Amino acid sequence: MTKNKMRGKMLLNKINEVREEVKKWRAEGLKVGLVPTMGALHEGHLSLIKKAKAECDKVVVSVFVNPIQFGPSEDFDKYPRTLEADTELCDGEKVDIVFAPSAQEMYGNNRLSNDTLTYIYPPYFFVDKLCGKSRVGHFDGVCTVVMKLFNIVQPDCAFFGQKDAQQVIIIKKMVNDLNVPIEIIQCPIVREESGLALSSRNKYLSEEGKKDALVLSQILNNIKACYKRGITDIEALKETAYSYLTEKHDMEYLEILNKNNLEEEKFADENSIALIACRVDGVRLIDNILFTEDENA
Amino acid sequence: MTKNKMRGKMLLNKINEVREEVKKWRAEGLKVGLVPTMGALHEGHLSLIKKAKAECDKVVVSVFVNPIQFGPSEDFDKYPRTLEADTELCDGEKVDIVFAPSAQEMYGNNRLSNDTLTYIYPPYFFVDKLCGKSRVGHFDGVCTVVMKLFNIVQPDCAFFGQKDAQQVIIIKKMVNDLNVPIEIIQCPIVREESGLALSSRNKYLSEEGKKDALVLSQILNNIKACYKRGITDIEALKETAYSYLTEKHDMEYLEILNKNNLEEEKFADENSIALIACRVDGVRLIDNILFTEDENA
Repeated sequence: MTKNKMRGKMLLNKINEVREEVKKWRAEGLKVGLVPTMGALHEGHLSLIKKAKAECDKVVVSVFVNPIQFGPSEDFDKYPRTLEADTELCDGEKVDIVFAPSAQEMYGNNRLSNDTLTYIYPPYFFVDKLCGKSRVGHFDGVCTVVMKLFNIVQPDCAFFGQKDAQQVIIIKKMVNDLNVPIEIIQCPIVREESGLALSSRNKYLSEEGKKDALVLSQILNNIKACYKRGITDIEALKETAYSYLTEKHDMEYLEILNKNNLEEEKFADENSIALIACRVDGVRLIDNILFTEDENA
Repeated sequence: MTKNKMRGKMLLNKINEVREEVKKWRAEGLKVGLVPTMGALHEGHLSLIKKAKAECDKVVVSVFVNPIQFGPSEDFDKYPRTLEADTELCDGEKVDIVFAPSAQEMYGNNRLSNDTLTYIYPPYFFVDKLCGKSRVGHFDGVCTVVMKLFNIVQPDCAFFGQKDAQQVIIIKKMVNDLNVPIEIIQCPIVREESGLALSSRNKYLSEEGKKDALVLSQILNNIKACYKRGITDIEALKETAYSYLTEKHDMEYLEILNKNNLEEEKFADENSIALIACRVDGVRLIDNILFTEDENA
């Protein structure tokens, strides 16, 4: 059905079909890029896709809402699924393959547990903080599915958004630790004019919630402005956040860490990153800002 | 130094050097085989290498005593290291590359723990039995280093011995679960004329220990003979072992399981495998036998 919907492009559901196509490209010596997504594509994803198109000869976008990265009380069932719209957006960007497998295609008939499936576990030091603290098992699921997608597509490079900062740091660590022969390309956060970082979960927000959510980027911008003005003490920088918060903001964390290894430090420098997670209007939102100028641009 | 020792072959220590060589082969469309070993090569390894030479255009043998698959009380320091002899044996088999990295090359300056390194964890169901029960963390270390070697060499196929039955079942499961694009080829156990399965750890045995060690293959052969004569009740088959054992044998396990998924069953059939681990003369030895004839051959 959907195969014909993409003009000259391909929507594929089967692992073997993707492998066959990519194999042909490889034989021609073409450079292949992968953009792994959970669908519900927005301008943030499109920026990754555009970057991939610019850097590679062929681009695969995977669309897979990965069950094993959601906790039992998380929004797996509710997570937006908009494959038709996603495929059209990809078509507009001249994506070569949209790979949208079923859970059955990805995990077979296995019960989805570490009793029955091989998992990748990122190092505890990288996981036991920030989003990993509340989302137990999340990054195990992310690393496992990303490794699967890497092995299925075998791209030369893969594109991830800086929006999910902890995720991209953990994936870079995995690639390094396991000698994965793929270059990880990190792309800056895309924001609404208001400053709100784009996220598929923004769809859950009411109009009022969207306004309240601006506090995340405001807090981060202010922290960076204070740093630029010479405040480097991390506790002092974090304290600047409190004046922004109201009873509408249920803050989960605000941290300023080393952007490469997620270590805590006493003083901020150009390797610092400020990260925030906050529940607004019942929706869990995250955002972050790098202390070096160019990398956010 | 050692580079010249191999007649026209190459002993390489660096990941990048191996990758470069293999890349050239790939560009020529050659089929690449990997034989991962911990060195101390014997006829068992040579049978893997011969199989790889027969099935592939180019063969890489890795020699790496992997620290993260040894427990704190195990024989990592004592494990035999005979790189010069190994290299000569590989040369005799016309191996194209012997890859013998340092631990530093494989793991960098990281502390070797799951706090600091990304690990592969095979499913608990496959690990919590047989050797996995006494060797806690062993198969995590095996899977992690095997995945690293796979990513470094990127072979078309990799060769493993049936001797380490649980290992090869777990690696096949990993390859399947993580969509690793490599064919796993399982090679039969090589035995001394006496019946003793070859193992690098046989070097630890005294002459008397070697004789006492024959009990392992005798027990397995007898179990299979009983099965052939019509006994299928697994408890009954296991009971036939006891008459062989003396105070010199410290049995760790004797199990008859399904050879594909390591499930326990009540009755044996052609999918069964009998596995034994026993400490003899202070040396931990393992052996196994498949209930189908051809696969042991």
